[in-house]
Amino acid sequence: MTQDERYMREALKQARKAYALGEVPIGCVIVHQDKIIGRGYNRRNTDKNTLAHAEITAINRASKKMGDWRLEECTLYVTLEPCQMCAGAIVQARITEVVMGSMNPKAGCGGSILNILEMPEFNHQVQVKRGVLAEECTQMLTLFFKELRVRNKLEKEAARERALSEQIPEKKKEESVEMKGKMEYNKK
Amino acid sequence: MTQDERYMREALKQARKAYALGEVPIGCVIVHQDKIIGRGYNRRNTDKNTLAHAEITAINRASKKMGDWRLEECTLYVTLEPCQMCAGAIVQARITEVVMGSMNPKAGCGGSILNILEMPEFNHQVQVKRGVLAEECTQMLTLFFKELRVRNKLEKEAARERALSEQIPEKKKEESVEMKGKMEYNKK
Repeated sequence: MTQDERYMREALKQARKAYALGEVPIGCVIVHQDKIIGRGYNRRNTDKNTLAHAEITAINRASKKMGDWRLEECTLYVTLEPCQMCAGAIVQARITEVVMGSMNPKAGCGGSILNILEMPEFNHQVQVKRGVLAEECTQMLTLFFKELRVRNKLEKEAARERALSEQIPEKKKEESVEMKGKMEYNKK
Repeated sequence: MTQDERYMREALKQARKAYALGEVPIGCVIVHQDKIIGRGYNRRNTDKNTLAHAEITAINRASKKMGDWRLEECTLYVTLEPCQMCAGAIVQARITEVVMGSMNPKAGCGGSILNILEMPEFNHQVQVKRGVLAEECTQMLTLFFKELRVRNKLEKEAARERALSEQIPEKKKEESVEMKGKMEYNKK
């Protein structure tokens, strides 16, 4: 196992914490001199906060540990290609290297929609490695969204059944009124 | 005074707090239903944290106030065009509108280097107004950088003087050794 794979496994451990909370499973660690100085996992829904992305949490912790807003000579490992906010934070924090697992073709800003990490127009460019343990990172996300679809389907069915069971007494009531009318008609 | 100018003045108030700390003076407020729900000003050096940008602090506070990571139907007022991280956070938080003062042609991502706020590729686009109270916002930044240059120059001069005054005793010592040698030579 390479050093990159070893730290990506640590990021995957973080992603599993998000999974356990029912959050999109994304995990991140930041390494300085062969030591993890910041960990984070997605808690956006749990914390009700956009800033609770894995990378932002890890950058926050690493900055506190280093006592500096500059995270120079640090490597950030993340299981999914960063979004525009997190890619921006990585450049702002002057992180030296980013190692990512899965790519995010619909929204990623580390090479998919944009490549904020390597833009020559900014005052800092990040070294980028893509596809480290990509299969494991992707599998976790695929499984999560599969389960989410099943959960959503079951919830929808349950809601439909609830709605039906609420309609039935109404219908029975209507029928009984109709029946009463018929009986009254018959009486005449 | 328009409503936009009124809230930009509130953002300028925040920027002045950054100025007082010797930080680049950038301020931000977030407004929902004609009420400020989040304020922030740049504290990057003070807090030693990349995430201490004005917009990120305001988004964090507004999310806590709203109890939601979505800041829909909110307007963010900021004295300087946002960087890549803050523009990204604005899109991620689904903020409806951004009103900015000065533009930042060297690093801004609300239309200068990039226009992250209005990219059709992302799942959210922000309405953008530029140049509200631009002159006042720019003046504050210009004054700050002018003072910073003077401060840096004075510090450099002071350091040079210190270095010189440390060299003089050394030189005097050398001279006195030389003199002693000469005197001893004269004795012979």
